[in-house]
Amino acid sequence: MKSRADPDFNLLFNPRSIALIGASNNIGKWGAIVFLNIVLGGYQGKLYPVNPREETILGHKAYARVSQIPDPVDLAIIAIPAHLTREAVQDCIQKGIRMAIVITSDFSETGEEGARLERELSETARASGMRLVGPNTMGIFSASVSLTALMPPVRPRKGKVSLVSQSGNIGTQMLGWGEKFAVGFRRYVSSGNEGDLRSEDYLTFLGKDPETQVILFYIEGLDDGREFFEASKKITPYKPIIAFKGGKTLAGARAARSHSGAMAGVKELYEAAFRQAGIIWASTTEEMLEWAAAFSSLPLPRGNRVAILTRGGGWGVITADACNEIGLEVPPLEEKIIQTMDSFLPSYWSRGNPVDMVATIGMEAYIKGLETLISWDKVDAVISLSGDAGPLAMIISDVKKRAESIISAEKMDRIAHQISESRTQIYQRVCELIGKYQKPIFAVGANLVRGKGSGQPDFTLAQFRTPERAAKAAGALYQYSRYRKAIGVE
Amino acid sequence: MKSRADPDFNLLFNPRSIALIGASNNIGKWGAIVFLNIVLGGYQGKLYPVNPREETILGHKAYARVSQIPDPVDLAIIAIPAHLTREAVQDCIQKGIRMAIVITSDFSETGEEGARLERELSETARASGMRLVGPNTMGIFSASVSLTALMPPVRPRKGKVSLVSQSGNIGTQMLGWGEKFAVGFRRYVSSGNEGDLRSEDYLTFLGKDPETQVILFYIEGLDDGREFFEASKKITPYKPIIAFKGGKTLAGARAARSHSGAMAGVKELYEAAFRQAGIIWASTTEEMLEWAAAFSSLPLPRGNRVAILTRGGGWGVITADACNEIGLEVPPLEEKIIQTMDSFLPSYWSRGNPVDMVATIGMEAYIKGLETLISWDKVDAVISLSGDAGPLAMIISDVKKRAESIISAEKMDRIAHQISESRTQIYQRVCELIGKYQKPIFAVGANLVRGKGSGQPDFTLAQFRTPERAAKAAGALYQYSRYRKAIGVE
Repeated sequence: MKSRADPDFNLLFNPRSIALIGASNNIGKWGAIVFLNIVLGGYQGKLYPVNPREETILGHKAYARVSQIPDPVDLAIIAIPAHLTREAVQDCIQKGIRMAIVITSDFSETGEEGARLERELSETARASGMRLVGPNTMGIFSASVSLTALMPPVRPRKGKVSLVSQSGNIGTQMLGWGEKFAVGFRRYVSSGNEGDLRSEDYLTFLGKDPETQVILFYIEGLDDGREFFEASKKITPYKPIIAFKGGKTLAGARAARSHSGAMAGVKELYEAAFRQAGIIWASTTEEMLEWAAAFSSLPLPRGNRVAILTRGGGWGVITADACNEIGLEVPPLEEKIIQTMDSFLPSYWSRGNPVDMVATIGMEAYIKGLETLISWDKVDAVISLSGDAGPLAMIISDVKKRAESIISAEKMDRIAHQISESRTQIYQRVCELIGKYQKPIFAVGANLVRGKGSGQPDFTLAQFRTPERAAKAAGALYQYSRYRKAIGVE
Repeated sequence: MKSRADPDFNLLFNPRSIALIGASNNIGKWGAIVFLNIVLGGYQGKLYPVNPREETILGHKAYARVSQIPDPVDLAIIAIPAHLTREAVQDCIQKGIRMAIVITSDFSETGEEGARLERELSETARASGMRLVGPNTMGIFSASVSLTALMPPVRPRKGKVSLVSQSGNIGTQMLGWGEKFAVGFRRYVSSGNEGDLRSEDYLTFLGKDPETQVILFYIEGLDDGREFFEASKKITPYKPIIAFKGGKTLAGARAARSHSGAMAGVKELYEAAFRQAGIIWASTTEEMLEWAAAFSSLPLPRGNRVAILTRGGGWGVITADACNEIGLEVPPLEEKIIQTMDSFLPSYWSRGNPVDMVATIGMEAYIKGLETLISWDKVDAVISLSGDAGPLAMIISDVKKRAESIISAEKMDRIAHQISESRTQIYQRVCELIGKYQKPIFAVGANLVRGKGSGQPDFTLAQFRTPERAAKAAGALYQYSRYRKAIGVE
């Protein structure tokens, strides 16, 4: 293997200027779609469309070749047929461009001839110190310069989670799910065929990237597993890596080969290597994002003891089961905790862990209960169920919709406003408790998310749709905390 | 144990008239909330509020006692303090009422004194041939008479799935999730403390109920496990039962005891008993509903061989993994299938199973691909990914929102309309293929659901949020199909 220039990822993630080679006015073509995505995503640098047959591209002056662009160019994006890409790369080299994203497909994923083309392309680039993302990539995202250089029209929410995906479709879906799972993204790379830059390179960069707090990986196969795991070991002591492996079974591995050329490894091997390197193994795509939300907004638990706060008995049972099943303890309450709770809970509360506060409890008692549990020295984390809305809130909002004739609308509006206010307050108080005691609170409920507007920089509190999912996230954080303790970090 | 009158569930699920004992004008009280729920839910029979201190209740003439109601009463709902319930039950008996729902709590769930009260209440009722739901129940639902006799303000979508829950909170959530998971309900019972009627009784009724197609159970503990499993064995040959067990672990069992008085059993015991009785064991609350949707809208697969149709390689890999991990086969394509596909797919399709049709494929080719697979004699089921929307649809709808100034709005509207039309068509064609070949198609995607309006009687096609969930549902249907084959039904 030829020696490679050290990739300058600053050119990829913070480019001051971009040339889009193959930019088009035809919105059925990727050269138009990627162009529009970048423009509409609000990219903060200069964008130069390159197309020899057009005067303008979607309102921007077009250049016949990159060499004709009057200013320096940090990054090229190549979206032209495969057999033309080599010449384009040579043009880029002449222009002094040292980083390119090759959107174009029909390379090694199609067979031998494509693989030859891909090798030639990569070698041409590398020989002159230029580095390539792809080919056959669906693009990248970088929050720092609002760059959505993507084929699909996703506008990821900004945050501190970075993602590398060996499948563009999976990556796209993850970015799209960010909103749903309260995950904000910093960097994203669809690594494509990895003809030049590989997963290991991105990983090493993200490990050092101060703007990245959590790293996510969708892996189908690794050219150099040892390098990947060695790189991981240097990162996991101070930054969590959550990975999902595609191609864990015979059928999955067969599918992975056919679509990306990556030779899928064996499940057990990967699991062992992940564990040794301190990488957290997600078993579903949804878990990846739920855990990313948890890791980016919550402190790590120092142990495996969980208190559960609920307004309904059955959910307490399910949560306790879910905790026990993955090795989290749900310790019985101590007498002092029971006495404290007695002072503000109705006489018929459960007096056990899970603490069933009963449906009708108000906000102040709820927060007091939460603080009693999170401050308890026998507990490392709290799972809090339906803190966002008691049944009363549901009832009132429903009655409001359906029975305005029966009860005055004005009175109802006042109550609805109070509910909304109290939700915001609960949200803030929960965040305060997490900060004060430096222990995680896993909040279950659909209504706590604040900052739905795109103006908000990031979510500050993870939320979970079901208590089972909250318990699994707590398990993932505990697993990582235990790993760090075992290797002497903390 | 005293002998019991055979419960007449027709009085519970199809009452022509209801007396609500404890009806109230104070919307902070359950006696008002349950009353409003019944009225607003559109109950098709007569409703009589009973309250000795009011002339009218929320616009309805009130009666001081049930005996004063001039007409016959099929069902009583009791929502008064515990110490008054026995007298109310005696009133009901005198009025000739033979079925009552006891919403009131403070019975066996609170300790010895409550347990005594509960026994007295049940014995009083039974001695005169009256049967009780509860006490400490959150109510019932019955689609046939639009009866939402519930504490929480849920309006379940109507369908053919019936649910019995030993936790009212879990049951409420399940009913609420029906919309989200495309599940329509027929009957629902929150069984409360089961002071009189028990899970076994409801189960036996639902087994015989011709309007119930799928039975769901949330179980924390069973008084008579043998009876429950014997009853199940008589039902599962012709009707699926999906159950979720709360209290599977030490922590969960402890929690279950404290809130319902039910002694939780051991996980392994239950699992073995479920398996022997042909009951499908759901491991999360979400699975219960996803599987209910699948069982109520799809034919059973005759074997475990699955074909996967996708527009994106990575998702194909994950789906194949998910299938293999639970024992479903993903057989390689036969030459004849490859040749058929070659005739309408672009040259670079995957030529393997999963069939990666590539992102840009149109609807007709998609449906042809689907029919090629579902008609293949080597396959028992198909998992179909993102049949609802190609990237083009996403791009266009996004560009429409963000770039109307660039492309004419009129043209965009036309395209958007075409997309919506084509989605409905795909939905119909998928349903037709299922009917034609009598094999299940598990559709993954968020946009296929039709009939969002409450006018629609039921969903006709299950849908899954992720391919992993689709694979698990396919596994559940296959497990049940195999059980039926093993016991000689089919």
